[in-house]
Amino acid sequence: MPKRVDHEERRRAIAEALWRIACARGLDGASLRDVAAEAGISLGQLQHYFSSRDELLVFALKHLGGLAEERIRRRLTGLSAPPSPRDVLRETVTEMLPLDEESRTGNLVQIAYFVRALHDERLRGHAKEGVPALRAFFADQVRAGIARGEVAATRVPDAEAMLLIALTDGLTTYLLLEVCTPEEAKGLLESHLERLFTP
Amino acid sequence: MPKRVDHEERRRAIAEALWRIACARGLDGASLRDVAAEAGISLGQLQHYFSSRDELLVFALKHLGGLAEERIRRRLTGLSAPPSPRDVLRETVTEMLPLDEESRTGNLVQIAYFVRALHDERLRGHAKEGVPALRAFFADQVRAGIARGEVAATRVPDAEAMLLIALTDGLTTYLLLEVCTPEEAKGLLESHLERLFTP
Repeated sequence: MPKRVDHEERRRAIAEALWRIACARGLDGASLRDVAAEAGISLGQLQHYFSSRDELLVFALKHLGGLAEERIRRRLTGLSAPPSPRDVLRETVTEMLPLDEESRTGNLVQIAYFVRALHDERLRGHAKEGVPALRAFFADQVRAGIARGEVAATRVPDAEAMLLIALTDGLTTYLLLEVCTPEEAKGLLESHLERLFTP
Repeated sequence: MPKRVDHEERRRAIAEALWRIACARGLDGASLRDVAAEAGISLGQLQHYFSSRDELLVFALKHLGGLAEERIRRRLTGLSAPPSPRDVLRETVTEMLPLDEESRTGNLVQIAYFVRALHDERLRGHAKEGVPALRAFFADQVRAGIARGEVAATRVPDAEAMLLIALTDGLTTYLLLEVCTPEEAKGLLESHLERLFTP
């Protein structure tokens, strides 16, 4: 068992080296050799854990996804009262925005991955995987809002979920480009939710 | 004067070689030498027109932006009746989505540029330039909608403009990843506009 743990730990350490490069200068043109250097190991050692750049990217992305889910869960359980569906949606989308170093890193790695997935069908498959789960989770909140009489029954939960995901994603872009301030992005999402939660 | 025209034509031909690479395999790792080869000229000849990859990227992006504006203008003037503010917004965001080869190319080049701008303050400056003009144009349409009694006077034109831009951008991502179908994306934008244009 310890050997397995070491293996996973080493893989995570390599993924973190990749994140540092993604944050500092982006992954455009960064090679496995660059990642190995950042992780303080040889290219051969790195290739023992990851046979290709894409394999490393998929692992780094899943690891980041897990950390992001963990962060959202902590945020929701940390609220004083049981959160309403509107609270859950607000806290989740806020946690998805690049408002601190960790979520900024997550978003930058996700973008690097997205750019590769555009030209690689296999990678696009992975990219699609995460969306239905998030969409179903958001749709559940809208459905709960309708059941509580807080959202108009004419709203379509699945469509509202996709709108909210797309909106959060678009605001992420403009936050990273510094076109939008964090306060503005949060205010825009709040006013979108305000209108959604109107019986 | 003919010399100047030749110069601009050559620059456009090089930009188009860059677009072809962006569409086929992305710009991640593509060098000036690759672009020169695609354009059928030597690296030295290319460097006569563009001294750096970023200079070429900025030119290619501005040229694409000009073509996109032209396309939107043609679409709006091609409508049978003078378009209402809601028509203008619908037609403009639809034209921005990657629904045909030309707008798909435009979006792919924009993303390649965006990824570089994340790590380059000077490039971020260029990226920011286009947004205020689009935002002001969208805000004007919302304002006109309020004046015509089609949009509630409580709506804030500038905020609605940014929401619509971010939403269109997010949907572009999910269209490119094939998470969303063109019909779905257009339907989601239509229902967003439907709600905005409710007195």
